[in-house]
Amino acid sequence: MDTLIKNATIVTMNEEKELLRTGYVLIKDGRFIEVEAGEPQAPLLEGVDVIDANGKWLMPGLVNTHGHTGMSLLRGINDDLPLNQWLEDKIWPIEKKLTPEAVQAARRLAMVEMIESGTTSFLDMYHLQMPEFAEEVAQVGLRATLMRSVIGLCSREEQDEKLAESIQLAEQFRGSGNGRIQTMLAPHAPYTCPPDYIERIVDAARERSLPVHMHLAETRKEINDYLTEHGMHPLELLEERDLLSGTEWLFAHGVHMHEQHFELLEKHNAAISHNPKSNLKLGAGIAPVASMLKHDLTVALGTDSVASNNALDLFEEMRFAVLLQRGINEQANMVETYEGLEMATISGAKALRYHDVGSIKVGNQADFILISAEQAHLHPKTDVLSHLVFAAKGSDVTDSFVQGKALMRNRNILTLDKEKILAEANQQLLLLQK
Amino acid sequence: MDTLIKNATIVTMNEEKELLRTGYVLIKDGRFIEVEAGEPQAPLLEGVDVIDANGKWLMPGLVNTHGHTGMSLLRGINDDLPLNQWLEDKIWPIEKKLTPEAVQAARRLAMVEMIESGTTSFLDMYHLQMPEFAEEVAQVGLRATLMRSVIGLCSREEQDEKLAESIQLAEQFRGSGNGRIQTMLAPHAPYTCPPDYIERIVDAARERSLPVHMHLAETRKEINDYLTEHGMHPLELLEERDLLSGTEWLFAHGVHMHEQHFELLEKHNAAISHNPKSNLKLGAGIAPVASMLKHDLTVALGTDSVASNNALDLFEEMRFAVLLQRGINEQANMVETYEGLEMATISGAKALRYHDVGSIKVGNQADFILISAEQAHLHPKTDVLSHLVFAAKGSDVTDSFVQGKALMRNRNILTLDKEKILAEANQQLLLLQK
Repeated sequence: MDTLIKNATIVTMNEEKELLRTGYVLIKDGRFIEVEAGEPQAPLLEGVDVIDANGKWLMPGLVNTHGHTGMSLLRGINDDLPLNQWLEDKIWPIEKKLTPEAVQAARRLAMVEMIESGTTSFLDMYHLQMPEFAEEVAQVGLRATLMRSVIGLCSREEQDEKLAESIQLAEQFRGSGNGRIQTMLAPHAPYTCPPDYIERIVDAARERSLPVHMHLAETRKEINDYLTEHGMHPLELLEERDLLSGTEWLFAHGVHMHEQHFELLEKHNAAISHNPKSNLKLGAGIAPVASMLKHDLTVALGTDSVASNNALDLFEEMRFAVLLQRGINEQANMVETYEGLEMATISGAKALRYHDVGSIKVGNQADFILISAEQAHLHPKTDVLSHLVFAAKGSDVTDSFVQGKALMRNRNILTLDKEKILAEANQQLLLLQK
Repeated sequence: MDTLIKNATIVTMNEEKELLRTGYVLIKDGRFIEVEAGEPQAPLLEGVDVIDANGKWLMPGLVNTHGHTGMSLLRGINDDLPLNQWLEDKIWPIEKKLTPEAVQAARRLAMVEMIESGTTSFLDMYHLQMPEFAEEVAQVGLRATLMRSVIGLCSREEQDEKLAESIQLAEQFRGSGNGRIQTMLAPHAPYTCPPDYIERIVDAARERSLPVHMHLAETRKEINDYLTEHGMHPLELLEERDLLSGTEWLFAHGVHMHEQHFELLEKHNAAISHNPKSNLKLGAGIAPVASMLKHDLTVALGTDSVASNNALDLFEEMRFAVLLQRGINEQANMVETYEGLEMATISGAKALRYHDVGSIKVGNQADFILISAEQAHLHPKTDVLSHLVFAAKGSDVTDSFVQGKALMRNRNILTLDKEKILAEANQQLLLLQK
């Protein structure tokens, strides 16, 4: 049945940056067919499912452009170690023990957390059980871009096997779940994939018009090691080998980049997934987002996994993204409120190469959330945009819809069994720690 | 009646850093008289009000060491202006129009927000209606340290009048509300109070053994202007005039300070209220907290007002405090998880010069909160301390007690009328904007 949501304050994120103080949206076949200010005329209400938003804020669902949901059981596994020791002594040993059940439990937990905090689209990059996950995500109803990430520090034979597996995933699930599942290819990082391997992956992506996702310039060590080994920054090497052109790149992190790199990204229409909390927590640094935004670059937000965040709440990510730039540049008006919202919505959709997601407008996919403003921290009702960026929490989200289908109503998740999933997460962690 | 809380995971924050996986606390006359692991023996349960925490986490109530609740209606009043323009064009004009009703509405809103997000003690520094507020806070049941702040850019006569007013407030309300209300004197800042005036305020504080609170070294401009005018950093001028000794100082911000300043603070047992989000948002910078913590210094947390934050959620403040230091120092193990919790609890109490608040131990005031762990973002239940610092939200707090008296039970605020207060906040803002 068609759905009409009325009495909402609508943050459209459309080209005109419209904010409809009281408005309604009409949804048919998973898309917005009307987005209007004011009250709907009586005939519109006939034969549709009418939801009275009661003054709630309606905005595009948030887009998480970098993460590894399969690691969600690792939240809080020792947060006070230096990065290498943390990876080598804590994360990798437990990751090696990950069973299919543990990975499944982790992902279900992540999906609950994402839905509860307003995320409707997410990118997931991992090496385990991606086909099973693609099927489950399609059932749950979230929108996702999935990829089997590959590490190339192995024989040519193994490299080819992994690449074949990731192509297989990408081709099999691209467009599945009524188009909600999209795919990419994903070399893990410059320091884990030799240039020749990245080249073969990019070639495979070009042949199939698949976008490519990779960690890039996350830590200073990565850059220094690359300079020693290759005499240049990893992005410069990609350019030298002509791997940036003709490819839709999305790079995660980009902490250690400079002016010449932003120009390269702009030239090739490459997007950046900025992961501010993860970058802080792992001691990677603070990406120069204010400088990036001066270019015609798509800068979106990602949480990374909860092992290095430790949450999947894009409201916090938005806040960190804006506030950090003001702090490090000592300028109170650097990176505007609206830019924070763009990073979490429309730019996220652009980074994932979605063309009809990320804003509330006629013809777009009906991916949206409702937020209750009846919270002390969202009062007085001064400025919706400011409150969304600087004060709102994931827990203020009450309802979530993807393609017009409700995933959460009044804080109740409809397509996943939260209670069972929380219990399973604890149980699976105990098994891993045995 | 005495109260016994059982089946809680207790984060004591005591000297031994004890974490009681299942434990109980017994409260009599507003103080903890038992804090134990395990199940309470049957006789303990007789004649007391028994609350089953059902596995919730019990921790000391959070302490907010810097704020201006009277400004809470100014949340989100244009967040994209440079600092001076923001103050001169937006904040000051509307502040001039603040009516007693507006200030009262702002403060009630702030108290709701603080209770809901786990704050049980707060510092409030403002120039309007402090006696009325002292009486209201005592009724509401929060713990607070209140002060009438003074700006000395005026005639000697006016300076004296303001100082007399602040002494009057400090003496009248010190220890009121069953000891929950404490007071300080508060020169506003070095750039708004000439040295002679600060000296007279410090003298008055010394005579009455009152602590002193002041903004210090917030922006680079403040330091540069002071260097031009006085040839030294404002903290150095306080030392030169012997205003640091024999006084219990609490400085807010301390963004622009260096090694020699930490030594001065340590020498005089002065405390710092670190306000990470406000410092970022106003483009002030990032305080060198990791360096401060290498000294024997009390570093506590503050939110500042919601005009520059824009929330009063100390869980976020904790997270920013820890993560920022890791990011700017590019070191994943800088400022430990436990130090984050200390800043928000025991160090906050120390900064406000409370001697029996900030940790869960026998003899201490029963100021504590309960947190529901039944949240996706707090699962799996790996490490309580990590989850509190890196993943918890103010909205996870379910219950709040001060001196053993409940201010909130199961998210319902008991001593304030939330619905009425939210409505009043909106109404008063509309009147101010007329």
